[in-house]
Amino acid sequence: MKNIDINSDLGESFGAYTMGNDAEVLRYVTSANIACGFHASDPLTMQKAVRQAKEAGVKIGAHPGYPDLVGFGRRELKVSPAELKAMVIYQVGALQAVCKAEGTKLHHVKPHGAMYNMAAKDEKLADAIAEAVAAVDGSLTLVGLSGSCLKAAAEKHGLAFAAEVFADRAYEDDGSLVSRTKPGAMIEDEDLAIRRMLHLLETGTIESSNGKEIRLEADTICVHGDSPKAVLFAKKLREALDARIAAK
Amino acid sequence: MKNIDINSDLGESFGAYTMGNDAEVLRYVTSANIACGFHASDPLTMQKAVRQAKEAGVKIGAHPGYPDLVGFGRRELKVSPAELKAMVIYQVGALQAVCKAEGTKLHHVKPHGAMYNMAAKDEKLADAIAEAVAAVDGSLTLVGLSGSCLKAAAEKHGLAFAAEVFADRAYEDDGSLVSRTKPGAMIEDEDLAIRRMLHLLETGTIESSNGKEIRLEADTICVHGDSPKAVLFAKKLREALDARIAAK
Amino acid sequence: MKNIDINSDLGESFGAYTMGNDAEVLRYVTSANIACGFHASDPLTMQKAVRQAKEAGVKIGAHPGYPDLVGFGRRELKVSPAELKAMVIYQVGALQAVCKAEGTKLHHVKPHGAMYNMAAKDEKLADAIAEAVAAVDGSLTLVGLSGSCLKAAAEKHGLAFAAEVFADRAYEDDGSLVSRTKPGAMIEDEDLAIRRMLHLLETGTIESSNGKEIRLEADTICVHGDSPKAVLFAKKLREALDARIAAK
Amino acid sequence: MKNIDINSDLGESFGAYTMGNDAEVLRYVTSANIACGFHASDPLTMQKAVRQAKEAGVKIGAHPGYPDLVGFGRRELKVSPAELKAMVIYQVGALQAVCKAEGTKLHHVKPHGAMYNMAAKDEKLADAIAEAVAAVDGSLTLVGLSGSCLKAAAEKHGLAFAAEVFADRAYEDDGSLVSRTKPGAMIEDEDLAIRRMLHLLETGTIESSNGKEIRLEADTICVHGDSPKAVLFAKKLREALDARIAAK
Repeated sequence: MKNIDINSDLGESFGAYTMGNDAEVLRYVTSANIACGFHASDPLTMQKAVRQAKEAGVKIGAHPGYPDLVGFGRRELKVSPAELKAMVIYQVGALQAVCKAEGTKLHHVKPHGAMYNMAAKDEKLADAIAEAVAAVDGSLTLVGLSGSCLKAAAEKHGLAFAAEVFADRAYEDDGSLVSRTKPGAMIEDEDLAIRRMLHLLETGTIESSNGKEIRLEADTICVHGDSPKAVLFAKKLREALDARIAAK
Repeated sequence: MKNIDINSDLGESFGAYTMGNDAEVLRYVTSANIACGFHASDPLTMQKAVRQAKEAGVKIGAHPGYPDLVGFGRRELKVSPAELKAMVIYQVGALQAVCKAEGTKLHHVKPHGAMYNMAAKDEKLADAIAEAVAAVDGSLTLVGLSGSCLKAAAEKHGLAFAAEVFADRAYEDDGSLVSRTKPGAMIEDEDLAIRRMLHLLETGTIESSNGKEIRLEADTICVHGDSPKAVLFAKKLREALDARIAAK
Repeated sequence: MKNIDINSDLGESFGAYTMGNDAEVLRYVTSANIACGFHASDPLTMQKAVRQAKEAGVKIGAHPGYPDLVGFGRRELKVSPAELKAMVIYQVGALQAVCKAEGTKLHHVKPHGAMYNMAAKDEKLADAIAEAVAAVDGSLTLVGLSGSCLKAAAEKHGLAFAAEVFADRAYEDDGSLVSRTKPGAMIEDEDLAIRRMLHLLETGTIESSNGKEIRLEADTICVHGDSPKAVLFAKKLREALDARIAAK
Repeated sequence: MKNIDINSDLGESFGAYTMGNDAEVLRYVTSANIACGFHASDPLTMQKAVRQAKEAGVKIGAHPGYPDLVGFGRRELKVSPAELKAMVIYQVGALQAVCKAEGTKLHHVKPHGAMYNMAAKDEKLADAIAEAVAAVDGSLTLVGLSGSCLKAAAEKHGLAFAAEVFADRAYEDDGSLVSRTKPGAMIEDEDLAIRRMLHLLETGTIESSNGKEIRLEADTICVHGDSPKAVLFAKKLREALDARIAAK
């Protein structure tokens, strides 16, 4: 069984507002996606998150989002590809400089929230993101939804791509996520969620919501750090993966 | 007589709002300070300004400011040195990435508005700015008010420093700018302003508001592009400098 | 022929940025829609616009928009009806207080940009806007696209509705605006645009882009003030309307 | 002994970010100062806070701040009196409309953070705030630091004034707060803090940091709700006050 990356969105605090438990979740992940000031975070928060990730020996990624602080970048915003490209370059550059100042290096870029979801389905937006990342640093890995059109965009612009899967989400037969508006979209049972991930890593397949075994590319698993329960799940997932790898 | 740099603040438009005439003023300057999205500008505007400056063969600098869009970065904001350092790293990094994406390179950093003025007098703020710039790229030149404490800060952090002078401002005996609240602070007569600059370049001295010849370091002259009159003055100053140099 | 209101969007400057020529366009309109700080404007700009409109004897309306300053409120943003209702209450209240402080009164509310367009087609968004306006002041008139679902929403919440038409736009057979992406969407010929408006006011009908005479409700005509040409058109339209009324 | 108002700053959450425990602290206070979207809060948060305060039967006040979300309105910003007046009108109006929509009424205005502190010492800023409040609604009470220049400003503009005291702060001989940068600025012992408040209410005097009994006007006591400890202190203070009043 191949080892797999676990990533989490970090550095999402803002000024006097705290979000998530970065220090805790950093114990269980191998990649940190750090917000860049558009949907969350601010320069001091980014600096702190980069320091913590560096100390934890975790790979650092930029997590650019739409300029919608009050909506936390989760609301669809109809931007043009040119606007999107420019805002990704800006945000990646800002975090890159924070990394430089902290004596470390940016490793990947993962779009956030509505930007992530819209780029998963819209080729022009996906292309704008990949073009932006490649223009800043062609050695960065682009992280996106497994099976989404971000993969082709990354390849077109010569970027490595990492396919992201969600332990707590159900999948349709075509490998897309079951919409949150449908019943059964979330895998509430944590043990089941972990079993599904272990199965995926061993076989390359996962059971869809219709009971079919479907192929699903998986380079990195997303976990959350915004609640004690979420951090605990990250810990359990990490331990399950480590145990399985040790057993091989 | 040494040749001298002429710089102007550019890329200060924002979204649907236009400010200044970048294309025109780029014909007469040798350095462009491009706003970075905190007090003015946005990712697309920055991209356009970098393109225009590159095409014009003009050196590109970052022009970081306070996060005060409605006040255009001109209002004093009491930030801590740590906040200031982080916000300069962020803004310089953002513009650096835009330069990279456009196939060019950042050359200098000049703080904007209230940040510029506060750092001229406050050693801790000056130090924070210089530390930030050095942390991102030690080969960048820091531009600041001639005679201000930014010079020592730049030297402390191993940065080249460029002393900025203002053709349209009167100077006190100690080399500081006459406050705008005092009569005679502005040199309204354009021909006088140009004669003063030529004299400064030849002798290294300028006449203070009290009639004394004072020494004033001068590496770059600031001109504005926010009105047709300002652009015309930039043109006249450029021509006067070029004529004098050609005559030598 | 009935007289008709002419309205324009005003108070769209922001901090150091100027947009439009409010003083000039106020000479030709009877209603001013003043931006409320989300997509444009700021407290001082609103104050100035209210003062100018009051002096000109023009009816004052709130022009709430999406919180998207860099996009000028023109980009679609997927907000929930609850978010929309709250943001309209907030913006209308802010301008209402400015009016109170300036000794005048708010008369109407016209949503801006993407909010206007989305509410024209989406009943839930239209309902949220009308509910918000009614909750703040039931005597306010709601202004919206002629034939759009804002009319029913206004009626449901007991508000007067004013149907807005555009002199410079072509109409489909069903009374909707021809999309700007289609050829012929804009009526470039100013004299034709004015003749179409006079015809509409006399007959209640307008020629669609397919050559059909269609009925179109018209309580107010929108003009722009963002260019000298736009202001000139406002003047010509005003004069044409006045001449026709005087002739009756 | 007169009964006394207890106030707390509420509605300080922002979008996805939560701050304070509004529901809990509302059990112990008689006045709620609700943030207005400039230094904290957003339209939906304001709506929720107004609803909760109304249900709790607590007087509702506007808590306007500087437009500095990342600094939570705590950083000094050098605004002109005209800018300050306009931003207070705007924010008070926004909250007033939320109150109207929720079927309740605004009772008072208390400036926040740096605006509060700067207006306590600067007559022009104090005047601008009082003028703004009076211009929106002359029946509103202005809440400010006891002994500060906001009182004279309120009186000049015909507003009722409520003098605010802090249970957890030490006072200088002249009735001003001991600066937080000095040792002993904070009264850490909760029982002592409560005894000091009871003494103040009975005698109208408080012991200064130099051991002098000084007169101190006290109409309202400020408590915080941003930590479980703070909420517990509010509860204890409330109970102590109620017990003393019942005993009389």
